[in-house]
Amino acid sequence: MAGNDDPRSTSLDALYRPRSIAVIGASRRKGAIGFEITRNLINYEFPGAVYPVNPNAQTVHSIRCHKSVLAIQDDVDLAFIVVPRPLVLRAVEECGIKGVKAIVVITAGFKETGVEGESEEAAILEAVRKHGMRMLGPNCMGLINTHPERQLNGTFARQTPLMGRVGFMSQSGALGVVLLDYASRMNLGFSMFASVGNKADVSGNDLVEYWENDPDTDVICLYLEGFGNPRKFIPLARRVTRRKPIVVVKSGRTLQGAQAASSHTGVLARTMEAGTQALLEQNGILRVNTVRQIFDVAKALVAGRYPKGDRIGIVTNAGGPGVLITDAMVHMGMKVPAFTAETQKKLRAHLPLEAAVGNPVDIIGSGDAESYRHSLDAVGSDPNVDALIVVFVPPVMVSVSEVSRAILEARHKIEIPMLTCIMGGTGDEEILAELDHSGVPNYEFPDAAAVAMSSLVRYAQLRARPAGTLRTFDVDAGAASRAVASARARGGGWLGEEEVRTLFEAYGIPFVESARAADRDEAVKVASRVGYPVVLKVDSPDVLHKTDVDGVQVDVRSDEEVASGFDRMLEAVREAQPDARVEGVIVQPMLKKGKEVILGMTLDPSFGPLIMFGLGGIFAEVLRDASFRIAPLTDLDAREMVEGLRGEAYLRGVRGEGPVDFEGLAEILMRLSQLVMDFQEIEEFDINPFLACPEGQVSAAVDARVRIADSFPSP
Amino acid sequence: MAGNDDPRSTSLDALYRPRSIAVIGASRRKGAIGFEITRNLINYEFPGAVYPVNPNAQTVHSIRCHKSVLAIQDDVDLAFIVVPRPLVLRAVEECGIKGVKAIVVITAGFKETGVEGESEEAAILEAVRKHGMRMLGPNCMGLINTHPERQLNGTFARQTPLMGRVGFMSQSGALGVVLLDYASRMNLGFSMFASVGNKADVSGNDLVEYWENDPDTDVICLYLEGFGNPRKFIPLARRVTRRKPIVVVKSGRTLQGAQAASSHTGVLARTMEAGTQALLEQNGILRVNTVRQIFDVAKALVAGRYPKGDRIGIVTNAGGPGVLITDAMVHMGMKVPAFTAETQKKLRAHLPLEAAVGNPVDIIGSGDAESYRHSLDAVGSDPNVDALIVVFVPPVMVSVSEVSRAILEARHKIEIPMLTCIMGGTGDEEILAELDHSGVPNYEFPDAAAVAMSSLVRYAQLRARPAGTLRTFDVDAGAASRAVASARARGGGWLGEEEVRTLFEAYGIPFVESARAADRDEAVKVASRVGYPVVLKVDSPDVLHKTDVDGVQVDVRSDEEVASGFDRMLEAVREAQPDARVEGVIVQPMLKKGKEVILGMTLDPSFGPLIMFGLGGIFAEVLRDASFRIAPLTDLDAREMVEGLRGEAYLRGVRGEGPVDFEGLAEILMRLSQLVMDFQEIEEFDINPFLACPEGQVSAAVDARVRIADSFPSP
Repeated sequence: MAGNDDPRSTSLDALYRPRSIAVIGASRRKGAIGFEITRNLINYEFPGAVYPVNPNAQTVHSIRCHKSVLAIQDDVDLAFIVVPRPLVLRAVEECGIKGVKAIVVITAGFKETGVEGESEEAAILEAVRKHGMRMLGPNCMGLINTHPERQLNGTFARQTPLMGRVGFMSQSGALGVVLLDYASRMNLGFSMFASVGNKADVSGNDLVEYWENDPDTDVICLYLEGFGNPRKFIPLARRVTRRKPIVVVKSGRTLQGAQAASSHTGVLARTMEAGTQALLEQNGILRVNTVRQIFDVAKALVAGRYPKGDRIGIVTNAGGPGVLITDAMVHMGMKVPAFTAETQKKLRAHLPLEAAVGNPVDIIGSGDAESYRHSLDAVGSDPNVDALIVVFVPPVMVSVSEVSRAILEARHKIEIPMLTCIMGGTGDEEILAELDHSGVPNYEFPDAAAVAMSSLVRYAQLRARPAGTLRTFDVDAGAASRAVASARARGGGWLGEEEVRTLFEAYGIPFVESARAADRDEAVKVASRVGYPVVLKVDSPDVLHKTDVDGVQVDVRSDEEVASGFDRMLEAVREAQPDARVEGVIVQPMLKKGKEVILGMTLDPSFGPLIMFGLGGIFAEVLRDASFRIAPLTDLDAREMVEGLRGEAYLRGVRGEGPVDFEGLAEILMRLSQLVMDFQEIEEFDINPFLACPEGQVSAAVDARVRIADSFPSP
Repeated sequence: MAGNDDPRSTSLDALYRPRSIAVIGASRRKGAIGFEITRNLINYEFPGAVYPVNPNAQTVHSIRCHKSVLAIQDDVDLAFIVVPRPLVLRAVEECGIKGVKAIVVITAGFKETGVEGESEEAAILEAVRKHGMRMLGPNCMGLINTHPERQLNGTFARQTPLMGRVGFMSQSGALGVVLLDYASRMNLGFSMFASVGNKADVSGNDLVEYWENDPDTDVICLYLEGFGNPRKFIPLARRVTRRKPIVVVKSGRTLQGAQAASSHTGVLARTMEAGTQALLEQNGILRVNTVRQIFDVAKALVAGRYPKGDRIGIVTNAGGPGVLITDAMVHMGMKVPAFTAETQKKLRAHLPLEAAVGNPVDIIGSGDAESYRHSLDAVGSDPNVDALIVVFVPPVMVSVSEVSRAILEARHKIEIPMLTCIMGGTGDEEILAELDHSGVPNYEFPDAAAVAMSSLVRYAQLRARPAGTLRTFDVDAGAASRAVASARARGGGWLGEEEVRTLFEAYGIPFVESARAADRDEAVKVASRVGYPVVLKVDSPDVLHKTDVDGVQVDVRSDEEVASGFDRMLEAVREAQPDARVEGVIVQPMLKKGKEVILGMTLDPSFGPLIMFGLGGIFAEVLRDASFRIAPLTDLDAREMVEGLRGEAYLRGVRGEGPVDFEGLAEILMRLSQLVMDFQEIEEFDINPFLACPEGQVSAAVDARVRIADSFPSP
């Protein structure tokens, strides 16, 4: 992304801490952007001077206008540019001459509209660079800083933003403004906001980096439609998420969504989602699927308390919502554990007989502030509980504000995180807002509370996980290099089987022994050499699906069985496909307890080498169960890959089988990662199947394909 | 459920159409339930007379009080009872004597509190029955009828209910009231509401039946915490959903949720969720997972237009939300198809060059009411599109009300269903409500719009599907009866293998041939008889996992291989488990292309025989992929079961294999259904594996267990 190598990108102070602002294209017409921005700057009490610039107006919003930015006598730090597109470049040039430090180009009609707009945008960027300025936009909705000493509402949003501790970046301007408004309604405030538009200069990466060090920002929220520069984002996110949570909603999850979101072809759209998911998981980012959830989650994170584990205690005065939250928590992989006997005794002592003292605690409809006080006290100190959700459905006789006060008091005594789900609090908005502002995030609906809680747990887990190390294996790079070079010399393409063996051997990736036998006697000889039991496969360039023509026999256990199997197989194939050229059979040792997995890699143009691990055989076709990570893989990445499948139970062993060698598999993945990082000419590989065996036994690739680029990919 | 066999249950007119009402326990104290109900009845302008009853007050809410219901001179049709628990029975008796037709018992403290309360409730019910009354409650929050000629707000909700076409029943009183309030905020109105409380007399079934024939109710919404009488609900729901959609949120989806929701043991809780899901799917009911979704869905259904298919067209002025909806629709199994060339041409003609004319159509931020008008016209008549979602994120320069009007106009020209997602319409609530009230349901968030649309599609599909027929197969009931009777005679328990064979043969359920061979020669003889290839399995009562001791050999293809396999297997088992008693081997024909599936049944105390179909082998253990239906199974049920697995692709055939015989499998399920309906003494069976083969080949059970009750289950 442009601007990323610029040393200035570490500070966006010119944008967020200006001392004076010009609005170029300020307008007298209400409803016009040039009017609304001016008004918002002034009504939000920007502490410095605001200079409207408009050659055709005397005043805008009661402030005297200047004919151009050059006509302003004082210094101007920041300029908003709202003039029609043909006038933008001149305005930018004048800002440069004037010594403006940063500009926000609201005007649209640039890169997003095609070739002509793209060259216009390039010209603007050149001017920005020439004068050493920074630029937000073009085609954006502006920015906000809520800090009382530098408050700046440089948007045309209708609602006044709430002050708070969330930095929010939106790639969609219109949606960003709508979401700001929504956040205010749910009592969530922001430290800063930016609509990045076309990201010609200032990118999402710049903002994340800026907010990393901003003392007023605790949580970073990103609405993304695509990634500009994932290779820069990866180390940045990995570092930042250790200190501050990053919550992302990224549209384009499905193939069709991704296609709608971009001009990518189908194939690229497919790896785009896998790459996105890998990038987010690998780097500790919380992903949510809806725009509503992003702020539900942010609100919980802003409270700043993270649970030590995933065991949730629930206190409710109505059975239904308690059960709905239990369902949701369990569904999201959390636990709703039993309380200790002591906790149950404490609860019993203060609650009526009809109350339920299990988890959830149901203090029933007659429960009042006092009942909540006692229950929160008991559950909040239970050693089996890592976090608390308090549900309250106000009955007519119980006061919302008294219960809320009891919860607020409890918050000071209880050390674990707590959030509330107070339903139907119409008329009690003020006291509910007090909960939100006092570190007890409140949700109107059980599902929202559950999503928020699970994200708290997840972030705590992400932050606590080790950083992961990049292991470097001792390999024979020379041998591999020769194999790759010879393939490149002939114009790239798929490697031959021997070349694949060479490459894998050089990088310590086991490949099953496999020998061709042209006749029955040779088959018997080979089989005794590789050791029983063996697998026989017909060797024919014309047979595509060997099993369909009875061309595979497994578990062959003796010389006699090989001999009879050889004859039978050739006969069967001849019968099924008379014109197939049969060159004999392939004899391989049968890795008996091996489970088929697939290891693969695709070189994605934006993410780089995207490594895949999945279940093989029928599982691959039925489940499409796979995990992805972007190379280079740390030991943590590799372990998460092999342990992260839906069908993990299969690898763990069913019916009393032992598990496959997970450590060994992880090492193979890291070796493959090293291979593709060393040779970026490798565009694609596919090991299918790889037989994963229990520890102590040989796991090995059985079939593998590797493709080399015909020309070196541009970095 | 009590009251269900009562002929009066078909009409709840006494509750919903009274001419006069008494409030027994009316109170002068604001905030008290007896005050709030009286006030709501009066403020909502109940057209008949309201009589407060309170021996200690002269007036309540300016109306003269009576000392008892008996002291009222005129007829009283309906009485609300709000007196303390010890006084309820007397009040009920007096109502009976007075000739009151129906009562609503708000007072709590009955069955829900234990044994004492339960007997008190029984006494009240007896009084109700004796006097020929109907009763809602006890322990409920009342009822509402919004019809202008009989308007009746018999609740203590704070908000006035909106009139509309949804019948809403809540099993949780507190939650019901909160949800009514929420529904009003989203412009959703109700025809009637009931909080059923303990359901001593009037049940959910009664209400569904009542609303089935109510001309003012188009959609039925149920918040359920458990099922009272599923066997009555099944035929009722099956019938009603053909005419009116039923939307259900049922808490207790997860095992832990179900346990929290009830005093069921773990095992019962497990079948409870499977039974619930089966019941809902089988009978055309829409299930949602959150309380928010129930009204999102109801709002779309109330509009009354159903799509003919699942192909959704999307028109948006902002990329992001369009992509989010595309993602959500595809994720929920809908299609977002390409438009015809003609549609694209029409769109191109009116939209700027930068607009996207694919699906979603992006009219971009500059798009105004006119752009929407043209786009809706084009997309709304595209033959590839079955329904429309219109997204609008208001930019500052485009008027929400103009765009809304354009959409409203389009609604009259377009025949397919349409819903909108107008985001951030703060300040435009009135025009947005007009959309809602004009049959264009509007949603603030993309995910809500997507859920609503997918439910529309789903309901249209449910309503269009054939009713399903119950086939009766010609079976040998006598033989089966003798097998079952002999098992009962010995006190029930698991049937022996020969008994299972008898039972299955009688009902036409194929069971694989299987023969024991004590020595090698016998094994060869048996193998030639059953036909090659065969499977050899060690026959030992001491070996639990045959594969672990190398006690299984598959694909044995000749006499010689049987002989050598026999010897090798016995040796291997002797080595692995020296003290195992080995009685020989079992020889079975190998059903080569067979795929392992599992057929099972558990007799659930409330749902009856719950039949299960799932993938077998490793799939069963890794995926736990199964579908459930409640017997008796129609042909439609059986087909949906065999086609409804996540791993269906496995049965359809991978790698060029053909599909298994789905018709044949469905028939086996129907035969099993007939078996368990004929013999309700069968408590449980488990066919694992059943080998499902392609059509034309023999599919058969390989292993099966059947358990007979020791005492006949009560009906």
